Amino acid sequence: MRLAVLGATGSIGTSTLDVAIRHPERFEVRAVAAGRDWEGLLRICRAHRPSRAALADEQAAAQLRDRLQAEGLEHIEVSAGEEGVAALAADADVDAVVTAVVGAAGLASSLAACRAGKRILLANKETLVVAGALFMETAQRHGAQIVPVDSEHNAVFQGLPTGTDATAGVERIVLTASGGPFRDRDPDTLAAVTPEEAVAHPNWSMGRKISVDSATMMNKGLEVIEACHLFDLEPQRVDVVIHRQSLVHALVGYRDGSYLAQVGSPDMRVPISYAMGYPERIASGVDLVDLAAAGRLDFEAVDERRFPCLRLAYQALRTGDGACAVLNAANEIAVDAFLDGRLRFDRIAPVIEDALAAETPPPPKDLDSARAIDAQARRVAEEAVRRIAD
Amino acid sequence: MRLAVLGATGSIGTSTLDVAIRHPERFEVRAVAAGRDWEGLLRICRAHRPSRAALADEQAAAQLRDRLQAEGLEHIEVSAGEEGVAALAADADVDAVVTAVVGAAGLASSLAACRAGKRILLANKETLVVAGALFMETAQRHGAQIVPVDSEHNAVFQGLPTGTDATAGVERIVLTASGGPFRDRDPDTLAAVTPEEAVAHPNWSMGRKISVDSATMMNKGLEVIEACHLFDLEPQRVDVVIHRQSLVHALVGYRDGSYLAQVGSPDMRVPISYAMGYPERIASGVDLVDLAAAGRLDFEAVDERRFPCLRLAYQALRTGDGACAVLNAANEIAVDAFLDGRLRFDRIAPVIEDALAAETPPPPKDLDSARAIDAQARRVAEEAVRRIAD
Repeated sequence: MRLAVLGATGSIGTSTLDVAIRHPERFEVRAVAAGRDWEGLLRICRAHRPSRAALADEQAAAQLRDRLQAEGLEHIEVSAGEEGVAALAADADVDAVVTAVVGAAGLASSLAACRAGKRILLANKETLVVAGALFMETAQRHGAQIVPVDSEHNAVFQGLPTGTDATAGVERIVLTASGGPFRDRDPDTLAAVTPEEAVAHPNWSMGRKISVDSATMMNKGLEVIEACHLFDLEPQRVDVVIHRQSLVHALVGYRDGSYLAQVGSPDMRVPISYAMGYPERIASGVDLVDLAAAGRLDFEAVDERRFPCLRLAYQALRTGDGACAVLNAANEIAVDAFLDGRLRFDRIAPVIEDALAAETPPPPKDLDSARAIDAQARRVAEEAVRRIAD
Repeated sequence: MRLAVLGATGSIGTSTLDVAIRHPERFEVRAVAAGRDWEGLLRICRAHRPSRAALADEQAAAQLRDRLQAEGLEHIEVSAGEEGVAALAADADVDAVVTAVVGAAGLASSLAACRAGKRILLANKETLVVAGALFMETAQRHGAQIVPVDSEHNAVFQGLPTGTDATAGVERIVLTASGGPFRDRDPDTLAAVTPEEAVAHPNWSMGRKISVDSATMMNKGLEVIEACHLFDLEPQRVDVVIHRQSLVHALVGYRDGSYLAQVGSPDMRVPISYAMGYPERIASGVDLVDLAAAGRLDFEAVDERRFPCLRLAYQALRTGDGACAVLNAANEIAVDAFLDGRLRFDRIAPVIEDALAAETPPPPKDLDSARAIDAQARRVAEEAVRRIAD
C-alpha cells in the first residue's frame, strides 16, 4: 500500500511512519507533507525516501528543496502551499492518504483525497465537524473509503462488523473521555485556571490547543459530531462517559445488550495500525494492556455544569452542519484568547454560546462555502471574545 | 430459522425460548428435549407448539405422551431415551440445534447435530472437553457451523471478525472469572468449606455442580479447554483473569495492541441472542449495561494456590484430549463426593490430580470410545476419592 502522510511531522504522522517502517513489505511511504516544519520533514525524507514532499508554507518549502538538493535527494519533488499539500492527496500513485493536517486547513486535502477515491485514514477533526455531510457525500460519490484514526472513532470502527450495513443493530455508541485535568476540580474555581494548568493532560501527550479542548471537553463534543457523520447515527445515540484511565476508548452497544469495547494503551500507533492494516491486524509495536496490572477501569457520568462545552456541541449538532462550523471556529478563537491570557477559562463556553446564538449559516456545499462560513464565524467569535472578556 | 432446543427446561433452554418468542417471524421452535422434567417440557409444548419433543428418561417420556394426548396436543411426536434426544438434533426440518443438555450425555446429540451439518448453538461444556478434536473435525467434515453460547466463548466470538480465518492476528484471548464465593477467603480455611457455602455464587444463578466448579474455578479450566478447541488456539494463548463484576465476559487481544472486550449483563439471553441471530443483532430483552452506574470494572490475576483446579486444566490440555476427559470425569466424581459430604472441598483438586496421574487414555475417536474413556476415568476417580477422603 502506497501512503501519503499529510501532517507527517505531528504525533499521528510520526506514529504512522513508525508503523509503516515495521512493515516495509506492506507499506511504501510515497508522499509526505507538513505545515512549516521543514527540518522535521527533511528528517522524514531521509528516512523514508518518498517520491514527493510538500509544505503548506512557501518559504519552508523552498528551504526543504534547497536542503534536499544539497543532500543529493533532489529526486524528491517538493511542492508548496495548501494546494501543494492537497495535490499529494490526489496523487495517482497513492492508495491511502493519512489526513493528519491539524485545523481547518486539513479540509482541502481531505476533500481532494475523497474526490480521488482514496482510502482515507482520517485524522483531521475539522473535516467532519465543519463539513461532515459534504465530506461523507463526496466520499460516497467517488468511492473513497473512510477509516477513522482518532482513538475513539477507531475504537468504534473496531467494534462494528466489517460489512456494508455496518451500524445495523447498533443501539448506541459510547465515547470515553478522560475528563482532562479538571475532572475532580471544584467547578466554582474554574475561573482561575491558567493556560499551564489547562494543558497538563493526565493521559495523553498533546498540543496546547487540543489539551485545552480536553480540559473543556470540547474535544469530546467535536468527536460526538464526527461520530454522528462517520457512523450515520442520530445525536441521541452517541453518549460520552468519563473513564479516567484512558484504556477503553469507545464502546459499541448493540440491541441485544452487548457492548463491544476497544481496550488499548493510549498510544496512537494502536488505532493507526488498525486503520493502516484494515481489515487485517498488523503489529503496531504496542503491547496489549496488562489487565491485572491496570487493576480497574472506572466510568462516571459527565457533569454538565463542569463541562458546558459538551452540551454546546450537542446543541450545534442538532442545529446542523453550519452551526457545527460556527462551534468549531468560535472554539478555536476562544481557546486562542484563553491561551493568550485574553479570556478566562470559564468564559470559553459563553463565547461559543454567543457565537452560536448570533447566526446559523446553512451547511457548506463546497470547500469555498466552508471557508466562508469559517471566516465569518471567526469574526463573530472575535466579537464575542471582546464582549465577554470585558 | 427452525430450532431444536435440547435441554429446553434448563436456564439456557429457557433463555433461548424467551428470545425465540420475541421474534416469531424469525424463529420456529420445531423440537424440544429435556432429561426427565416432563412437566417443564409440557409447559414448553403448550407455549411453543413444537412438532417433536423428547425426554432422555423413558418413563418421563411416557408421562409427557399421555398428558399431551389428554390436552389435544397428540400431534407433538414424543421420543424417548438418549437416542430419541439425539434424533431431534438430526431432524431434517431443523436448521439450528441448541445443545444445552448438561453433562456427558450432551455429547451424543452434539455429534448428531454435527453429522447432520446443522448450525450448532453449543452450550454443552462436555462436548469440547471430552471430545474436542473429534467434535471439531466432525463439524468441519459435515459443514456444521459452531456458534458458542457460553457467555465467555460467545464474548470471544463477538470479538472476532466474521470471516474464514477468524483468529488471524489474535495474540491471546482472556476469559474472565468472577472468582466465585471464595475469591477473598483465606486459602488456609478452604478445608472447612461446606456445600452450602460453595453453591452461593455471587453473580450468576446456577446449578449446584456448576456452582462448585465456579468456586474451585474448574469451570474456567474447562472453558480454557473449550476455547482452545473452538478457536484453534494453543493453551498459552488463553488467559484467565478475575473480574468480580461479571460484566466483561472475555477479551480478544490482537497483535496491534487492541483488545475487543464484550461487556453485558450476566444474563444468558445476551449471548444466546447473538448466537441465534448471528451475524445479525436481534433484541434479547436485556438492556445495555449502565456504565456510569456500574462505576468500575476490576481485574486481578488468579492466585494459583487458591485455585489449583485451573492449573490442572492447563496440565490436561497440554497432555491431550484423553487427559481432558479424565479431568472432566474426575471433577464430576469429586464434586459429587463433596456435595455428598464424602470429600473435603480442598481435596477436590488432589482427587483430580490423582486421576490424571493414574492414566492417560488416547483421544477418543468416536462416541463409544469417548464413553469408554469417561467410564474408566470415573472408576479411577472413585478410587481416588476413597483413597484421599480417608
